[in-house]
Amino acid sequence: MTVDWKELVADKRRRQQETIPKDWLIGCPPDTVLDVTAIPEQCGLLSERELQITNTVDVAVLLQKLHSAEWSAVEVTTAFYKRAIIAHQLVNCLTEIFVGRALARAAELDEHLKTTGKVVGPLHGLPISLKDQICLKGLETTMGYASWIGKYADKDAALVEVLYECGAVPFVRTNVPQTLMWAETYNVVFGRTSNPANRNLTCGGSSGGEGALIHLKGSLLGVGSDIGGSIRIPALFNGLYALRPSYGRVPYQGAVNSMYGQDSIPSVLGPLSNSLSGIQIFMQAVIGQKPWLKDPLAVRKKWDTEEYALAEHGGGQQLCFAIMWNDGIVVPHPPIIRALETTREALLRAGHKVIDWQPLKHLELGDAIAAIWKAGASEDFKATTALTGEPVIMSMSPVDGAGPGDPSVRPDAVGMTAYQLWQIQKARADLRKEYLDHWQKTVDTTGTGRPVDAIISPGAPFAAPPHGKNFYSNYTKVFNALDYSACIFPVTRVDVTKDVKKPAHTFLSNLDETNYNLYDPVVFQNAPVGLQLVGRTLEEEAVIAMTEIVDTALKAGSAA
Amino acid sequence: MTVDWKELVADKRRRQQETIPKDWLIGCPPDTVLDVTAIPEQCGLLSERELQITNTVDVAVLLQKLHSAEWSAVEVTTAFYKRAIIAHQLVNCLTEIFVGRALARAAELDEHLKTTGKVVGPLHGLPISLKDQICLKGLETTMGYASWIGKYADKDAALVEVLYECGAVPFVRTNVPQTLMWAETYNVVFGRTSNPANRNLTCGGSSGGEGALIHLKGSLLGVGSDIGGSIRIPALFNGLYALRPSYGRVPYQGAVNSMYGQDSIPSVLGPLSNSLSGIQIFMQAVIGQKPWLKDPLAVRKKWDTEEYALAEHGGGQQLCFAIMWNDGIVVPHPPIIRALETTREALLRAGHKVIDWQPLKHLELGDAIAAIWKAGASEDFKATTALTGEPVIMSMSPVDGAGPGDPSVRPDAVGMTAYQLWQIQKARADLRKEYLDHWQKTVDTTGTGRPVDAIISPGAPFAAPPHGKNFYSNYTKVFNALDYSACIFPVTRVDVTKDVKKPAHTFLSNLDETNYNLYDPVVFQNAPVGLQLVGRTLEEEAVIAMTEIVDTALKAGSAA
Repeated sequence: MTVDWKELVADKRRRQQETIPKDWLIGCPPDTVLDVTAIPEQCGLLSERELQITNTVDVAVLLQKLHSAEWSAVEVTTAFYKRAIIAHQLVNCLTEIFVGRALARAAELDEHLKTTGKVVGPLHGLPISLKDQICLKGLETTMGYASWIGKYADKDAALVEVLYECGAVPFVRTNVPQTLMWAETYNVVFGRTSNPANRNLTCGGSSGGEGALIHLKGSLLGVGSDIGGSIRIPALFNGLYALRPSYGRVPYQGAVNSMYGQDSIPSVLGPLSNSLSGIQIFMQAVIGQKPWLKDPLAVRKKWDTEEYALAEHGGGQQLCFAIMWNDGIVVPHPPIIRALETTREALLRAGHKVIDWQPLKHLELGDAIAAIWKAGASEDFKATTALTGEPVIMSMSPVDGAGPGDPSVRPDAVGMTAYQLWQIQKARADLRKEYLDHWQKTVDTTGTGRPVDAIISPGAPFAAPPHGKNFYSNYTKVFNALDYSACIFPVTRVDVTKDVKKPAHTFLSNLDETNYNLYDPVVFQNAPVGLQLVGRTLEEEAVIAMTEIVDTALKAGSAA
Repeated sequence: MTVDWKELVADKRRRQQETIPKDWLIGCPPDTVLDVTAIPEQCGLLSERELQITNTVDVAVLLQKLHSAEWSAVEVTTAFYKRAIIAHQLVNCLTEIFVGRALARAAELDEHLKTTGKVVGPLHGLPISLKDQICLKGLETTMGYASWIGKYADKDAALVEVLYECGAVPFVRTNVPQTLMWAETYNVVFGRTSNPANRNLTCGGSSGGEGALIHLKGSLLGVGSDIGGSIRIPALFNGLYALRPSYGRVPYQGAVNSMYGQDSIPSVLGPLSNSLSGIQIFMQAVIGQKPWLKDPLAVRKKWDTEEYALAEHGGGQQLCFAIMWNDGIVVPHPPIIRALETTREALLRAGHKVIDWQPLKHLELGDAIAAIWKAGASEDFKATTALTGEPVIMSMSPVDGAGPGDPSVRPDAVGMTAYQLWQIQKARADLRKEYLDHWQKTVDTTGTGRPVDAIISPGAPFAAPPHGKNFYSNYTKVFNALDYSACIFPVTRVDVTKDVKKPAHTFLSNLDETNYNLYDPVVFQNAPVGLQLVGRTLEEEAVIAMTEIVDTALKAGSAA
């Protein structure tokens, strides 16, 4: 017996609409208004103080004001909630909305601080948004599946328990693509999330709701997940900071997911934020709660202050970065190359060394990770959608079936035997060893006595592309295959005058030609441009610290 | 085109025989002599000084004498090599023998110490034996497969590189069962390894050559691997200390294995030794070399001196141990129960708390791990043996096909699809979470304010059984499924007067009845009896430190 999924969706949408306080509705601009980033400040819903609160992009500053009781948790949560609801009306970024519950939690925190004079934990009072897979007890978790409407969580995810212990206020959940296995954000339950800088462009995915929400400052800090770029791509496309931690550094237990039981390329949870302080504070706080006592897959490894002080990287005095100009498969668009050049110059000015990174077998790495997913993806998606007969989405294009999509995450895979899967996993393990040795060998060329400290790489060969056009995610995916820690940082925006289209080069591949043809500076105008800093497995502390160095150098450069 | 595997084997055996120095051959006792443990001292081959060296069971003491140059690396290596060759003639425990190479290495170390006054590393001069899967450049690695005869390694395994950096002297390789997926030691290339305490009994497996060799003090410290008990079972059956570390704590890269590419239940390398100091020194030395720079799967986690000081366990002042008297499936034989009682009394006397451990779903855990292996095991074994057509061994019994074997590692599995495998892996992940929560909940009953500090458990329901009768390995296997760190320690020996057979109890299972019927104190007479101390994932430091506490308590008890 199947249920009519369209009826379920209509009911869910009606229920979602009812959770929005009526006096938080704004007069929305027509769809033809593409850049909506100024509207939260212009729409008149937010008071001066609410604007002051929500424009505080530095998480460290916001926490200082909360912990000193200069701002109450209730007023901070209210301010961000209102701005989140505004954001939702502009780009459709939210799924679960639970104002009363969040405000009640905030009131408890205020009471605690008032009564005891102490904060509950390092994130006391901080509203945190969560991707629509991180379960909150008593709320539905649909993950873009009509078939999961009405699936209420009977307990909090381990990370949510940790965040409560830290004093945070989980306050909204955010939109995703059905299955999570796409780098854009669309599903039949909640529809499509757009990019606030240009609503013709995608916000990326699968943590796309997070990206768009934080872009509009409807949240300062949110949690996404990344199995092939799903934290990093939305961060890049929305001008944010974000971290893809190594397997198990942040507890995943109790979050729902596609392809559960696929142990070889685990998805990871990690933070997206308007500030790098947000990334650092989140990671230290979460690890400080010993998440391995809640999640058997969480790595028992304390936050390492020595590694954060770059003890393994000469104390950060003179680092050697390696820039990957392209991955040997697809040459990035002009704004991405400009971001790499800008970063290179800033680092040289700051006294660091910069050499070129030689990518090693990125095609093989991408093929391996895609093959591992495909081994059972199609059966997984079919099993999940069978309850209602809802369609498995095969394209992210607004014109049904017209978009190219990313073939590596297309869910029309044919399965294989377990033994065949092991052979692919074996090949992938060998590639990890090759890449490690490749990195270690750079000790001969850096001149620092150390191998390259970090790679600076594109996170995508383009800024946010039009909906349905995000066809290539290998710049992020290879680092999931390698399990390298990677931090996204913003650099610039697409500028029609600076980022003119270049004459065609000799294409590295068919994908390269597709990518070249995709570029038109007018189409991408105003889209944020970021990069990723890549370090070693379980080196989150150093990766954050080195990104701070890069970020400082870039800001010094733009100030100069 | 296939090769005649029997010819390959004959040639390999001839070549092995040629590697043994003629003047190290002894007059062997007839097979009817069962206990051969005194023969190395009685056979006359070893000088007084060589006996003094090889009877130094404490690795810390041996290293002190090496590092102070009181004993040279050459004389220590020579002494252990001679004793290893004696052991081999008694119980057939060696595979690769390379005297000249090891002595040349030892001479280099002596020269280094003499010239510089400094040791090469923390294991300077220590001979280390290696299971026949840990590759040494230029040597064959057959792993019990006739099909791998002539397969010469073109590089050292990562662990071997680390051991060289530490100053160790890899000096022999040791026997295994074909496929490694058995808890006894027999293959068509090298034949069977027996238990030195009673040659009618198995030495266990798959690191059985290590167990038997160290039992006879032919090596003080060796390296085995454990995917279901393969380090721990030989340690138990030979009266040794041994550690099954968590996934990735010791680098596995470059060791050959069965079922390579099976990412869900990784095999791990770990030490076996006559002394607990050997276990601790090995682990600290290996981790100190940053093995994650050689092996992408090695966990980036330093040796944690705070955890070794039991910072998470109240400084070790009053610990609460939980004894698992049985796993709810098979009741252990009387000598094992006596070992548990002895340990309980010793710990109480030492001022610690002891409660009972309630096993949780050990049957389901065992089924999950067995199903994951079976998903592709048979295809793997067939693919490996196809080159020569050698038989895949289906029983460890000396009477072909007559032994019951352990059905969980029997290689006649039927495969499954990748998606089916994921479903089993999902069920297993859920069991890990249940077990973690189960452990955490003990905080309510320990009275220490902490959950149980460690579990004290049988490692098998019997001491070393007769060849072909090691039919049950779930006491070790569940902790591979859970990835808990586990340390084996010796307690006693089977004693016909103390360990009389009890009247039949109400059997917990068919396996329990099989096990009951297997027991006859006369058959097991003199077999060593040990137990395992089980801690959390990646808690090797604390597990070793707590085992030291148990070991000290036991020694105080036997001295009293």
